[in-house]
Amino acid sequence: MANPTAAMLVIGDEILSGRTQDANLNHLAARLSEHGVDLEEARIVRDVHDKIVKAVRELSQAWDFVFTTGGIGPTHDDITADAVAESLGARIAVREDARAILEQHCISLGLELNEGRLRMARIPDGASLIVNSVSAAPGFRLGNVHVMAGVPKIFRAMLDEVLKDLPRGSPMISRSLEVYAPESELAGALGKIARKFPDLQVGSYPFRSADRRFVNVVVRGMSEKQVLAAEAGIRRVLAPYLED
Amino acid sequence: MANPTAAMLVIGDEILSGRTQDANLNHLAARLSEHGVDLEEARIVRDVHDKIVKAVRELSQAWDFVFTTGGIGPTHDDITADAVAESLGARIAVREDARAILEQHCISLGLELNEGRLRMARIPDGASLIVNSVSAAPGFRLGNVHVMAGVPKIFRAMLDEVLKDLPRGSPMISRSLEVYAPESELAGALGKIARKFPDLQVGSYPFRSADRRFVNVVVRGMSEKQVLAAEAGIRRVLAPYLED
Repeated sequence: MANPTAAMLVIGDEILSGRTQDANLNHLAARLSEHGVDLEEARIVRDVHDKIVKAVRELSQAWDFVFTTGGIGPTHDDITADAVAESLGARIAVREDARAILEQHCISLGLELNEGRLRMARIPDGASLIVNSVSAAPGFRLGNVHVMAGVPKIFRAMLDEVLKDLPRGSPMISRSLEVYAPESELAGALGKIARKFPDLQVGSYPFRSADRRFVNVVVRGMSEKQVLAAEAGIRRVLAPYLED
Repeated sequence: MANPTAAMLVIGDEILSGRTQDANLNHLAARLSEHGVDLEEARIVRDVHDKIVKAVRELSQAWDFVFTTGGIGPTHDDITADAVAESLGARIAVREDARAILEQHCISLGLELNEGRLRMARIPDGASLIVNSVSAAPGFRLGNVHVMAGVPKIFRAMLDEVLKDLPRGSPMISRSLEVYAPESELAGALGKIARKFPDLQVGSYPFRSADRRFVNVVVRGMSEKQVLAAEAGIRRVLAPYLED
């Protein structure tokens, strides 16, 4: 059976302006790989209501799960919750369960539950909350869309919660070899292997070290037997370029 | 006049599997900001022909410029050039000008111009070449789509070439302040400033250092006068939270 599929939507002007380097995509990608969920696509859009609505709608229709990051804080540019609600046709307002969590958090820290903090209790009708073990303000799941924070530490904590309940697929089996040659020397041989194993992904990733040119050859797939057979095939044809 | 707009398309299974951390988006975003081009959207898709074709078509219709990275090397999974050609309805084959560049490169290094290397001379009809000062194999521009390498060093060299001729807009003016308070204390004041200056982007980015909570407040826009006025407004209302 095919693995569940997923898309990521990163919401944030600060990524597209170059101010901030995204740190969540790589983490999500690696965790989903382990979980057996295939991340098929990612998009980064600006903090603009209509852009978020359109992206959420397209991605949630195309893939099994969507994960968003960013735009759920207390300030005026935190508009993700409202946009996701509109995408999926849900009503949104301050919800009592989320408000209670924030109130408890404020009481414990001696803070006021002001307008900004209350904004973080805006949760769409029908959504289930995602626990935030770092700073209380919850994320939520509405339909197949998981709405999470952009701050990496909070994103990771929320993802831990989400993965507890997310249906699992078969994790990809992956084998990699370092090959000591320019990539273009290997292209013919790798192409043959790839055609012989159409269910596998055969990738090659050049890198340099100490001014010598190397290639990481990676074979990935759901069948361990096929992956090992392909790896053996590559070792045979590329034997002259392998070092132990 | 509004700035030119742009989108980035990252092509690569290795990014979506979590194997590789993308390093090109942040670089492109920062360079375009300096150049006065607004990066409006980015997408990451798998090495699948139809996905690349669809994304290139949508992005090239929606924005002034598109920049792609990845998938123009010598191996079977390097399918970007063919996909871009199909997106824009161009014929593609090994082109003499590109072949000559690769042949010269091979002669100078004593290498054979084999099938893999020749694959890198596949360039669509009507495209102009983008010089690769690192490893010879060129990128290309077809219509408003700039096709560049995924290896960061080569991507950067190609982008230097592209920016020489790319129409410039007005670089965004940006001012940032470190504010010593939790973000939710500032939300009300920042929201008022943002409403007062609708042409500016007012963003707030929380971070922690030595276990204290800070916020970077960033004001961006094309009018220096407005940016400075907004900054002064923020300094006034947030005075209790600023340190010198």
